[in-house]
Amino acid sequence: MNILDDINHLLPVAGINIATAAANISYADRTDLTLIEIAVGSTTSAVFTQNAFCAAPVTVAKQHLKQTAPRYLLVNAGNANAGTGQAGIDAAIACCESIASELDCDVNQVLPFSTGVIGENLPVDKIKKVIPDLKIDLNPHHWMAAANAIMTTDTVPKGVSCQVNIANQVVTITGIAKGVGMLRPNMATMLAYITTDAKIEQSILDNCLTKAVAQSLNRITVDGDTSTNDACVLVATGQSKVTISELNLSEFQQALDKVFETLAKALVRDAEGATKLITINVSEAQNTSESDRVAYTVAHSPLVKTAFFASDPNWGRILAAVGRAGVKDLNIDKLKIFIGDVCIVENGGRSASYSEELGQKVMNESEITIHIQLGRGQASSTIWTCDFSYDYVKINAEYRS
Amino acid sequence: MNILDDINHLLPVAGINIATAAANISYADRTDLTLIEIAVGSTTSAVFTQNAFCAAPVTVAKQHLKQTAPRYLLVNAGNANAGTGQAGIDAAIACCESIASELDCDVNQVLPFSTGVIGENLPVDKIKKVIPDLKIDLNPHHWMAAANAIMTTDTVPKGVSCQVNIANQVVTITGIAKGVGMLRPNMATMLAYITTDAKIEQSILDNCLTKAVAQSLNRITVDGDTSTNDACVLVATGQSKVTISELNLSEFQQALDKVFETLAKALVRDAEGATKLITINVSEAQNTSESDRVAYTVAHSPLVKTAFFASDPNWGRILAAVGRAGVKDLNIDKLKIFIGDVCIVENGGRSASYSEELGQKVMNESEITIHIQLGRGQASSTIWTCDFSYDYVKINAEYRS
Repeated sequence: MNILDDINHLLPVAGINIATAAANISYADRTDLTLIEIAVGSTTSAVFTQNAFCAAPVTVAKQHLKQTAPRYLLVNAGNANAGTGQAGIDAAIACCESIASELDCDVNQVLPFSTGVIGENLPVDKIKKVIPDLKIDLNPHHWMAAANAIMTTDTVPKGVSCQVNIANQVVTITGIAKGVGMLRPNMATMLAYITTDAKIEQSILDNCLTKAVAQSLNRITVDGDTSTNDACVLVATGQSKVTISELNLSEFQQALDKVFETLAKALVRDAEGATKLITINVSEAQNTSESDRVAYTVAHSPLVKTAFFASDPNWGRILAAVGRAGVKDLNIDKLKIFIGDVCIVENGGRSASYSEELGQKVMNESEITIHIQLGRGQASSTIWTCDFSYDYVKINAEYRS
Repeated sequence: MNILDDINHLLPVAGINIATAAANISYADRTDLTLIEIAVGSTTSAVFTQNAFCAAPVTVAKQHLKQTAPRYLLVNAGNANAGTGQAGIDAAIACCESIASELDCDVNQVLPFSTGVIGENLPVDKIKKVIPDLKIDLNPHHWMAAANAIMTTDTVPKGVSCQVNIANQVVTITGIAKGVGMLRPNMATMLAYITTDAKIEQSILDNCLTKAVAQSLNRITVDGDTSTNDACVLVATGQSKVTISELNLSEFQQALDKVFETLAKALVRDAEGATKLITINVSEAQNTSESDRVAYTVAHSPLVKTAFFASDPNWGRILAAVGRAGVKDLNIDKLKIFIGDVCIVENGGRSASYSEELGQKVMNESEITIHIQLGRGQASSTIWTCDFSYDYVKINAEYRS
């Protein structure tokens, strides 16, 4: 397996063309509209936000996906088209109709996606105006342009390619993603598009996506705020010579998982105001619901996050977060906590081997792992999060201005 | 009922003496040790943190309280004596022994309380050294001095008195509290002491405390981080002429509730970095577990909190938080959200009557109420929280330095 996470050299995937344009939706002087063209004969699987207030494009995309295989994905940045009621639904459908008319397909073969401010009406006319430009721009080599055009408060485009040999043939997977705030995906994160040239029937593809998301995009959190617009799409064009079946599935799934994990970590590294990537590993839990609860409680603690921002080995805050995570009958004498390789808590208090110097050394690094061993069972969870800085507050206090 | 929330004029309570001293535990040039003397014949009730990593003084105070009626409460600021294992328990008991010896009582008649940094050993010798000074300083009029001496990152002392006529006699209630970060009490908040001169038998007093806490200190949150050291103590000295029984309980409870609510709101107003007091009222829920979940999800959303800091009516963030709160089968068409008197969401999206101007007017105020009507039932919850500012990050990134 060969992972290429250089955004400047994302690999084209046979059967996928991409175009971008500047529709001037909310930002000046940048591209903000992306069209992904999917060849006839491809299979497509998608997962969406579980926020009860899901955005209009999510509602429309789900309906269209039920009816037929998609040919086009239309993505705008700068306006979420969420909290917009029936007018929002009408606007999303109008955009799909415009693509269908310009590119000669059914309206339900177009899936709409939006990201940006919640609660403002989508400027449909601005979008319609540049659709002819999108048609001309369609090209297999425009992945980086798309990774740029889907960004909102992201500071860098996120994308990854992977090539894996299956049955002596090369399978290519390329994906892009965006989302650095209002980010605790619950089914999928805010806009991720992953494609492969392998041939994969629908039921297998659905399983591949579910598995990959469960271990990657659904295990990251910046601020605990699940978005109204999360969507993740996996497309298999089938234009390589490889068909994925139960026989070679594990090789493909492994490559796909790596692509998803790379994208998920890239989102957290670029999280709003973040200076550190923090991996939280909770083990020896009675079940994964318990290990998840402890991991997310630590990940969402503003006190833990600000201590990491300050590179302060203030481990008492991790201990306090574990203690309030609601684990029934937690025996604190059996619990151990490590930052990196340094044991900070054992036997119900500070480890005898701990020193401020050892803790400080780990905290100074930009990627840090917290290991929490509950001493209760065999289950474990790993999630990724980030620190909490002045800039998170600044970005989110100023986002609409 | 007469509420006096002027910290400079807290009323003495017959049977209660107070002393403070500077033990130089962590801060220079300020008092950091408080002793509250309780007259013989008083009843005392207390609730403590439910954090599994409860601090050593919490463990000791609970044990002592089971054995006998307390005569002294000893409170230090600057060191939490939490995460300190057996050494922490020994240190807490040593401080109690020192008080018992100096003031001639049993060691289990002394309850210890600590607040400050987690994970550092309590400097017992520094505390012992000033205990003779505490003995000399004991006086009924030292409430404000105590409210000051228990502070950590608090910027103002918090206290309130209340006088209520029951059976043509005056009952006095006076209480103080501290705690502005690592604050989402679960049983009680970080150090609150409330006393009254009414005579109240133990079982009634326990009920009074449970009820008052449930509607006040247990309904505030700054950052969702339940402390390791939370403790709230209610003392009834019985030195007025009023005995509280089932006959006059409701009048007393009403006054007590008002005292607790005043203290709880004072903590949130002084929350680390806070610029606004936000009341979140969730109604029309199927049950209070549901209304609580929605209220706390909104209260803990970093995006909602930073929008309030910016006085930005970015109501989409409130909508997104409600949508991710895990209310099963939430019908968004029946849901209504108001900020102040302004309806922001109805019929599944932005209210037709909403304008940015109306929203901005409410957001500019320093005390704001969010009303969320779920349209599902009769249950409701009210909690208090605050915004999230640069200064929260600053205070918590720099707290140990």
